[in-house]
Amino acid sequence: MAINNLKELFVHTLRDIYYAENQILKSLPKMARRADSADLRSAFEQHKQETEGHVERLDKVFGLLGEKAQGVKCHAIEGIIKEAEELMSEIKDGDTLDAGMIAAVQAVEHYEITRYGTLASWANLLQNREAASLLHETLDEERKTDTKLTELAEASLNKQAIA
Amino acid sequence: MAINNLKELFVHTLRDIYYAENQILKSLPKMARRADSADLRSAFEQHKQETEGHVERLDKVFGLLGEKAQGVKCHAIEGIIKEAEELMSEIKDGDTLDAGMIAAVQAVEHYEITRYGTLASWANLLQNREAASLLHETLDEERKTDTKLTELAEASLNKQAIA
Repeated sequence: MAINNLKELFVHTLRDIYYAENQILKSLPKMARRADSADLRSAFEQHKQETEGHVERLDKVFGLLGEKAQGVKCHAIEGIIKEAEELMSEIKDGDTLDAGMIAAVQAVEHYEITRYGTLASWANLLQNREAASLLHETLDEERKTDTKLTELAEASLNKQAIA
Repeated sequence: MAINNLKELFVHTLRDIYYAENQILKSLPKMARRADSADLRSAFEQHKQETEGHVERLDKVFGLLGEKAQGVKCHAIEGIIKEAEELMSEIKDGDTLDAGMIAAVQAVEHYEITRYGTLASWANLLQNREAASLLHETLDEERKTDTKLTELAEASLNKQAIA
């Protein structure tokens, strides 16, 4: 698809993050099953539920634009998830794997933070306030998840992984 | 390589970001050449110089650990850069391409922010203060670059791309 202006770039990037969110939905349950810490398992499960809400918000944004909700292959999230899966196959120790999976999910969160930040800014410029508001809600949730994972890691998990 | 504890995970992740920084060094000049805005070109060129400093800091961290400085293939950065290159081939309009390249480099920055944040936290846990301090310096520079790109985008580039 040729991209000739900001509106078309906005739709293209929405499709990119739509694809990414759907890949994340497939990946989080696999990570939750491997989590050694019950707190981490619960954080991954809760984030899966939130992610379902993010997909619904994207459906609404596509609707506001009169566009069909559809994804376009996102090489970035494929690479980030491939790295997470490699770690999951390379690490046998439970505490070390928990530390590695937290880092992997934080890489996912930061990818979403940058994309939703850009999309919300572009929605404002395109004067679509309703879309900007929906995208900001998700951006805030992704930031909170990232902070929560940092706290979880620093509070206990990383210390266990040193032993 | 098997990863059995936090120290080994730390070294593995250092190798991941070492590979990533070297890929970014190859990619930034290509983006600078395509930039329509002189300010953006200059921001990309300045960030390339900073990135050379980040590689030097990583060399020092490997030295502190008594490890050889070497990279390990980082699928995440490969995916992020592949997406940027696809955008560069799909967008012909200069202003729209500038908006797209800013978003692409911000995705790179956020990948680095999450990895350096994790590495600095792990260096603290491993009681390697000198490594933690070097990693924090780079983390701060990556955050500043991200903020600078947001300002550049919101000040002028995105508005030009609507036209």
